[in-house]
Amino acid sequence: MTTQKRSPVQLTEVGPRDGLQSDGARVSTAVKIAYIESLVEAGVRQIECTSFVHPKWVPAMADAEAVFAGLRKKEGVRYLALVPNLRGYDRARAAGCDAIALFTAASEAFAKKNINMTIDESLATFAEVAERAHADGVAVRGYVSTVIACPYSGRVEPEAVLTVVQRLLAMGCYEVSLGDTIGVGTPADVRKLLRTLLAEIGSDKLVMHFHDTFGMGVVNVAQSLSLGIRKFDASAGGLGGCPYAKSATGNVPTEDVLYLLDSLGYSTGISLDGIVKAGVGLAEHLSHPLPSRVHEAVVAGRVRIQHGDE
Amino acid sequence: MTTQKRSPVQLTEVGPRDGLQSDGARVSTAVKIAYIESLVEAGVRQIECTSFVHPKWVPAMADAEAVFAGLRKKEGVRYLALVPNLRGYDRARAAGCDAIALFTAASEAFAKKNINMTIDESLATFAEVAERAHADGVAVRGYVSTVIACPYSGRVEPEAVLTVVQRLLAMGCYEVSLGDTIGVGTPADVRKLLRTLLAEIGSDKLVMHFHDTFGMGVVNVAQSLSLGIRKFDASAGGLGGCPYAKSATGNVPTEDVLYLLDSLGYSTGISLDGIVKAGVGLAEHLSHPLPSRVHEAVVAGRVRIQHGDE
Repeated sequence: MTTQKRSPVQLTEVGPRDGLQSDGARVSTAVKIAYIESLVEAGVRQIECTSFVHPKWVPAMADAEAVFAGLRKKEGVRYLALVPNLRGYDRARAAGCDAIALFTAASEAFAKKNINMTIDESLATFAEVAERAHADGVAVRGYVSTVIACPYSGRVEPEAVLTVVQRLLAMGCYEVSLGDTIGVGTPADVRKLLRTLLAEIGSDKLVMHFHDTFGMGVVNVAQSLSLGIRKFDASAGGLGGCPYAKSATGNVPTEDVLYLLDSLGYSTGISLDGIVKAGVGLAEHLSHPLPSRVHEAVVAGRVRIQHGDE
Repeated sequence: MTTQKRSPVQLTEVGPRDGLQSDGARVSTAVKIAYIESLVEAGVRQIECTSFVHPKWVPAMADAEAVFAGLRKKEGVRYLALVPNLRGYDRARAAGCDAIALFTAASEAFAKKNINMTIDESLATFAEVAERAHADGVAVRGYVSTVIACPYSGRVEPEAVLTVVQRLLAMGCYEVSLGDTIGVGTPADVRKLLRTLLAEIGSDKLVMHFHDTFGMGVVNVAQSLSLGIRKFDASAGGLGGCPYAKSATGNVPTEDVLYLLDSLGYSTGISLDGIVKAGVGLAEHLSHPLPSRVHEAVVAGRVRIQHGDE
């Protein structure tokens, strides 16, 4: 684990979308908007706000239009929305969204269950969306889930991930987020995956997206940093997944990743205390505590020490 | 982070003592004994069972004699007990204990508050105990708390830790456990500490003991591994500390550390599922869920993948 002092790291906040996907049905549009704005207030510069999927699939995101309508956007911040197809793209555009995310998988079994398409079908759909987006000047981000393992078919080989990433980049995605969706990966898996990807793709195009199902989120971030990755997704409070689902639980918490990054001397422009504050504001509206250890420790007023100035 | 395949790692279970110190008043002696025996059944070879401190200081450990009296000891397992002074040593010996742990700190402020002695006074007391122990053929383990920071006086310098460790080794401790008691340390702190210690002391004499207050337990284990450390303390389920205290929360969970070690190819002789089973048995008697992510994931039946055979 290297500590390149003050090296910038891009942290993308996925709490409002990935985090609230399962909790969101209980959270009002106004609360979602306030949550997004408080995260931006904390310094977040790229944020997943919602998803323009059909409400039948993700009821918690049925208010996607209302979220974008209510949002007071800040200059220099990228407000992303997931878009599954041209219909979703049109909805997103009508709502004033100018940055979209396209979501596929490295596992055929997962793609089939999650987006009801083969990987090829999803990429063909996305190519159409991407073409429209480029013509409209809309930024396009790519997502690949199950990059380490699939809940239905087991281990996923790095070469399968590489192919999908290359195809997303070829259609003009400015970066691709790589999700260990079910959070089973460890530093050994991350190393294996990234050695294959980084041999072919620049690190500025790759984002690591970890889930904390087996408590490996932070150590996997550290491993990725040591291999040259400087872009991560994280979710304020560690929200994400469903406590009763068999596959994913929460994303790696933004607070825990920030605690690590700050101490290693990486700069993100994001205030840890600001993120904790945003989480406190949201937590009132949830039926369970936030999973982040750092959130809990800060809220409980536990002793902290100064980091990052050594 | 190196992955020395099948390299042995010693994992010492501290759940029954460090973990139950705050919860223990609610747990019967019979449950404690069953818990220790189930952890040994899972493959644990060194385990902190209890503490022969005055019950006024740690009421949860008032049944130390009864725990040792009831325990069916297994050959080849070291059953440790904390001993603060000669009076505690006599109690431990009378209870049939043949492996003791001596507990001091690297911070004067913490030593004063926690054991009501200066560091020098504690070491003078321990020298007497260690001398008796060696004459009796009793194994002596050393503990140094607050090796990264103290809740009362802030950062602790590695040189202060080194001095205390060297004095404990000089009085015959077979190894010394180094505790980041308040769990604020990160890989940067661990590296700074271990570079100083490993320049003077063999890695076989040093044990890292992390708390998960800020979610850094697993990543700090990974950092220590990469620097050559092969001995760790951990607590089944992540028990430890008090949820309402201002300083420490739970130890790094044994399950989470095992998940990491198994995947990196280190051998511990301990079964992850066995530890989870022991935690399930104990959890029925606690008023809160176990903090370990891996425990939660395994109990929930989340998808797992095979590790450690690559």
